[in-house]
Amino acid sequence: MSTVGVLGGGQLARMLALAGAPLGIRFLVVDSAEDACAAQVAPLLRADWRDFDALSDFARRVDVATFDFENVPADTARWLAERTRVSPNPRALAISQDRLAEKTLFREIGLDTPSFLAVDSRDELAQALRRIGAPSILKTRRLGYDGKGQFRLKSEADVDAAWDALAGAPAILEAFVPFDREVSVIAVRARDGEFRAWPLTQNWHADGILSASLAPAPHADALAPRAFAHARRLAEALDYVGTFALELFVCGERVLANEMAPRVHNSGHWTIEGAVASQFENHVRAVLGLPLGDTSALGIHAMLNWVGDLPDALAVLAEPRAHWHDYGKSARPGRKVGHATFCAADAAELADRLSRVGGALGRDAQVAPVIAALAQA
Amino acid sequence: MSTVGVLGGGQLARMLALAGAPLGIRFLVVDSAEDACAAQVAPLLRADWRDFDALSDFARRVDVATFDFENVPADTARWLAERTRVSPNPRALAISQDRLAEKTLFREIGLDTPSFLAVDSRDELAQALRRIGAPSILKTRRLGYDGKGQFRLKSEADVDAAWDALAGAPAILEAFVPFDREVSVIAVRARDGEFRAWPLTQNWHADGILSASLAPAPHADALAPRAFAHARRLAEALDYVGTFALELFVCGERVLANEMAPRVHNSGHWTIEGAVASQFENHVRAVLGLPLGDTSALGIHAMLNWVGDLPDALAVLAEPRAHWHDYGKSARPGRKVGHATFCAADAAELADRLSRVGGALGRDAQVAPVIAALAQA
Repeated sequence: MSTVGVLGGGQLARMLALAGAPLGIRFLVVDSAEDACAAQVAPLLRADWRDFDALSDFARRVDVATFDFENVPADTARWLAERTRVSPNPRALAISQDRLAEKTLFREIGLDTPSFLAVDSRDELAQALRRIGAPSILKTRRLGYDGKGQFRLKSEADVDAAWDALAGAPAILEAFVPFDREVSVIAVRARDGEFRAWPLTQNWHADGILSASLAPAPHADALAPRAFAHARRLAEALDYVGTFALELFVCGERVLANEMAPRVHNSGHWTIEGAVASQFENHVRAVLGLPLGDTSALGIHAMLNWVGDLPDALAVLAEPRAHWHDYGKSARPGRKVGHATFCAADAAELADRLSRVGGALGRDAQVAPVIAALAQA
Repeated sequence: MSTVGVLGGGQLARMLALAGAPLGIRFLVVDSAEDACAAQVAPLLRADWRDFDALSDFARRVDVATFDFENVPADTARWLAERTRVSPNPRALAISQDRLAEKTLFREIGLDTPSFLAVDSRDELAQALRRIGAPSILKTRRLGYDGKGQFRLKSEADVDAAWDALAGAPAILEAFVPFDREVSVIAVRARDGEFRAWPLTQNWHADGILSASLAPAPHADALAPRAFAHARRLAEALDYVGTFALELFVCGERVLANEMAPRVHNSGHWTIEGAVASQFENHVRAVLGLPLGDTSALGIHAMLNWVGDLPDALAVLAEPRAHWHDYGKSARPGRKVGHATFCAADAAELADRLSRVGGALGRDAQVAPVIAALAQA
């Protein structure tokens, strides 16, 4: 009986534990919050990332440690890696925590990216903006997720406001990309280097937070092999083990790497019901050194995120081939509290399902771009 | 946030909790064993069925109580029903606990059954055997499952041995049915009376314990509507709420009701991956008064039971569209410790998969009857 330790006890840890339990795998979650939602389905060790007494105990009790949250301090990951197996490895975690290191690596291994420059002062920001041009986006190098720590500059007049908004944190200025669409590769790499990707996923964001996903992404026959090759090169460069996401912008013929997430990813939640093996199951398999499961999708799937609070479950529960996910968290603005996945045999059936659910939930705006993409599929 | 209480903390409670967690439902399991396997995924209240202090606490903490184990004393169920909602209701539980009451009800509502007679003494057994004829099976009226509490009589010479084997427990003598095949209806009934059944499942037993299941059962177009009608009539007669199983013998044109299980059932485990909504999810939905999920199967599915100990997981994990279930229990002869489900688009693909896995695991005998049935599908 193996035990997987998870640093962070949010919905990703919860879904990892739910996916691993059928395989007979036990979990131990570390989180400083008593109400961490993963604790409803797995034992919780209450500790923060600097509580090395508790982490020693944790390391002794698990066969491998992994992450629900990419902003676990890299120092903590390195400290743990001297005491137990840690997957993904601390270097992969550290690089993905620093937008500058991440984009620099993307370039080194031949992934196209939006133009970017490091920015450590107000003057550097002004210079970088002149070189990259407006509009562009100033982002903190660290601790950004779901659109947090970002400021969009429309012109040089925004330099002061942007710099003040980031409060002097080390930053990166990136060219704003007028993308045609956003896609993500959800992929998994095993200890022995085997690499598998789920079908490419198309994503829509609202206020910087994922709003909806569609998989397999329509019209991706030419795009997917390039995207998978990018993801594979990245995983190999990092000697990555586990599931990860690579977010890409598609601009005409160009595919630009935006960012990676060194963990299971919101845009891969559709794999729970939509693929033979989910991103969660395969992450658990990978970090334990088990054979990878089948990443094939069966049919076509859309995921709608519930941010802030949950809509009425009954409209979703009453719909055929709809799957409700309530993370067991309390409502809070901007917080991911659940999602639903809608499955269908073809695009027309899925569009019909989304249209009905969008209407019943008063979420027409959320389903509209997905339905539009399906209409062209 | 609703809480479902489960009496009994075995693999059925475990799979109920795993199916309900995505819906945001919490669980509380009652079991007297500290190592009850459901306690790995849900909180455990350690108590036996007569610990009314603990059961009072349990009743206060749950929105509805249900069963992992049909042999919870009916008195306990009735006591609980005065304090919280209990689904299925205590009468349904009591009837299914008594083979005589169960078969009598089957007859009353028009379900054909094997011939049976109540047997309360050695003389009654001898008389019953003369009326029913040999071979026949003497079964305890209560506390039988997985072939326990049964004795097969080949002739009148077996009367003494049979009676001694049952140690004087109230019993029922049933005609042995030379069935062509065994099938089960897995069905669910909602609070509002809505009834749904999963596709008919064909089953094979070894030593009285389920060994393999196949769904949808081949050549069941004529059979399934009759079987579903039987199950529906039974559920309505019992005002049943939740998932249940009705086991049937098929003998030529006759369909004979063997027994019911007032709970999710081993022959419905394939629904976890094989149906849109599993028997576990729909049981949870039903007992909480939520809309029922879609019971359609996607493709064709076989389930192999692991009894006593687990075979090598790797051979299953390496197979596409194979799903491993390890209940987290220790090995013990005759104990159900896990299962695997194999999914395919058609019978030929499934037969191929089972043949490969049967060979790899040294389980050719277990897969052989399923492959034979698929060859005729």
